[in-house]
Amino acid sequence: MPEIIPEDSVGLVSPQTIPFSDPLTLSCGRTLDKYDLRVETYGQLNESFSNAVLICHALSGDHHAAGYHSMDDRKPGWWDSSIGPGKPIDTNHFFVVCLNNLGGCHGSSGPVEANPETGKPWGPDFPVVTVDDWVESQVRLADHLGIQQWAAIVGGSLGGMQVLEWTIRYPDRVRHAAVIASAPKLSAQNIAFNEVARQAIMSDSEFHGGRYQEKGTIPSKGIGLARMVGHITYLSDEAMKAKFGRELKKEYLSFDYDAEFQVESYLRYQAQEFSKRFDANSYLLMTRALDYYDPASRYNHNLVEALSEAKARFLVISFTTDWRFSPERSEEIVDALHAARKEVTYLKVDAPQGHDAFLMDIPRYTSALKAWMKHVAHESQQINEAGVQS
Amino acid sequence: MPEIIPEDSVGLVSPQTIPFSDPLTLSCGRTLDKYDLRVETYGQLNESFSNAVLICHALSGDHHAAGYHSMDDRKPGWWDSSIGPGKPIDTNHFFVVCLNNLGGCHGSSGPVEANPETGKPWGPDFPVVTVDDWVESQVRLADHLGIQQWAAIVGGSLGGMQVLEWTIRYPDRVRHAAVIASAPKLSAQNIAFNEVARQAIMSDSEFHGGRYQEKGTIPSKGIGLARMVGHITYLSDEAMKAKFGRELKKEYLSFDYDAEFQVESYLRYQAQEFSKRFDANSYLLMTRALDYYDPASRYNHNLVEALSEAKARFLVISFTTDWRFSPERSEEIVDALHAARKEVTYLKVDAPQGHDAFLMDIPRYTSALKAWMKHVAHESQQINEAGVQS
Repeated sequence: MPEIIPEDSVGLVSPQTIPFSDPLTLSCGRTLDKYDLRVETYGQLNESFSNAVLICHALSGDHHAAGYHSMDDRKPGWWDSSIGPGKPIDTNHFFVVCLNNLGGCHGSSGPVEANPETGKPWGPDFPVVTVDDWVESQVRLADHLGIQQWAAIVGGSLGGMQVLEWTIRYPDRVRHAAVIASAPKLSAQNIAFNEVARQAIMSDSEFHGGRYQEKGTIPSKGIGLARMVGHITYLSDEAMKAKFGRELKKEYLSFDYDAEFQVESYLRYQAQEFSKRFDANSYLLMTRALDYYDPASRYNHNLVEALSEAKARFLVISFTTDWRFSPERSEEIVDALHAARKEVTYLKVDAPQGHDAFLMDIPRYTSALKAWMKHVAHESQQINEAGVQS
Repeated sequence: MPEIIPEDSVGLVSPQTIPFSDPLTLSCGRTLDKYDLRVETYGQLNESFSNAVLICHALSGDHHAAGYHSMDDRKPGWWDSSIGPGKPIDTNHFFVVCLNNLGGCHGSSGPVEANPETGKPWGPDFPVVTVDDWVESQVRLADHLGIQQWAAIVGGSLGGMQVLEWTIRYPDRVRHAAVIASAPKLSAQNIAFNEVARQAIMSDSEFHGGRYQEKGTIPSKGIGLARMVGHITYLSDEAMKAKFGRELKKEYLSFDYDAEFQVESYLRYQAQEFSKRFDANSYLLMTRALDYYDPASRYNHNLVEALSEAKARFLVISFTTDWRFSPERSEEIVDALHAARKEVTYLKVDAPQGHDAFLMDIPRYTSALKAWMKHVAHESQQINEAGVQS
């Protein structure tokens, strides 16, 4: 909990729930007649609406990207290191929008929210959504906010896939696109880890075919296991070594299966905490959206062709020890952008933290993102001044 | 199932169960008053007992390393590619011994076998055993067979740790030591994956604190999940890509959580098969033995010091795409052996298969092991001839 709000924080923030009633047909063929999106915004929209930045969240993220909901909050939003006055995504210059994606479990329509047709939680009946569906819902959000073109769309990991999809699907509505620690599609190994997570959830005896809410329970062991597997893939071998090594909790071995090594305690704690804050059905949805994303599949499996109509200027960032989405995966995007003759800045950041690096304040990363966003801000201001003058 | 037994096979083989009644005090402090070891041997012991080779098995291995138990067997033993007449571990020259380790589930004393004191299966009451305990039990086996000194001890992965421990603990009883795709201790990431496997097993509602046999059930989902996690770490990203890519089972996406991608089906099948053949309590034991092994910890955390008394000539082999026990982990052993002025041949094999490579017939690997074992055979013969003459 912050004793005082830091000066470079967006401060106390409140999310809002925006209802949409224009039916949205999803990739799976089903239609959501009505849905809500839970949204947070930071900073002020300028007169010409030219300074809006969309932040797309990753697997377990939500709309609360920066600041605090109350003075009792233990931690700020998930990307507070990058969003705030004077920070890379500078709220003195930008109007920043972040939403909980459809199918999430933090206020947007999804498994834990009520199905308007029945008044009961959707549970496993909420449709399987895709990255494409998220972009479509984000377009509706942009329309609602009056934003015709985003100054930038920024996202890491699964968030980066949404950024990529925006540039392919709505080339005129994105001026700059930052794709961080991401990939143009999952590998077999990525899908395999997701499958383990899903099997862990679905085989939990408290899962009840996804209808655990009706039974007044949650598959906490399954969702905890899913988190443990995920967590291992977010950290590099190196980071785990530095953080835990083979340190024991006690001085001696206990010859049983209690948590003896520090890394075991850490994972058990992470599992327990996650099971309290994340819905199992949402986790299934998020992992499936990851599995399915493969924009090149619509273009003869040619990523260059997929990106041929993109108009955004790109920033692609990878981290040396990220083995979930390795630098090679980012470089597939960079190579395709080059081949499609797009403007792209690529940065491979030397960082020991693994995939999680994208959420951290790493000097080289932070300063590169800051410099790039400064250009974005400058251009937004020029557009604004031209608009105000005309 | 073999229609005819191949010429380079050890053929039809039968395991034997050897009872030991000299009490064995384990690392945990508990004592096994009596225990059985399930053993297979291939080839003939020579007059001077100088041609015996011990094979140490890995996590899910057993005593059945080569040949067939019956003409109905679908597959030969787990290392049939390397053991047989004319194969690297040539049964025309060697007397090869392989045992199911204590705590295993294929005939040696362990959780599925009867506790002689109660007449009921040990279940979770079987003591947690270590690599050191296995070596001690293997020493008893050597004594029983009259083998004072092994011509070679050979093992991959967890098997390699047993080989290493033999050279440290019984330097006079090992002439040659082959440590393949192994490590001198687990990393935090290795332990983390083991912890996920254990949590998957222990949180299965059919686990019943390990007393599932008494309840007439097995925690098949938990052991299946453990296998899925393990399996992902046995294969390289590259191997998974080549084997499965993003291939779908059907032509279209089904927008649910059935196994849609080939890699999902494969893992589910592996999980199911493994749960039929491997005991969950044994899996817990085997992973704990892996976690605990750290010979340097007894020598001021100095591996060079740990290996200072070793007398064996070493062969260390690693595989380029093995990320479970990467080449760097083998090189820690090689570097320590060099620093301790031991004779060591090191080979890093360029292979796309990941950790599983150590079980495969990869030409460069097979021929290197064959050449090295030829020297071992030659020396064994010389010793035999000298012994027979004297």
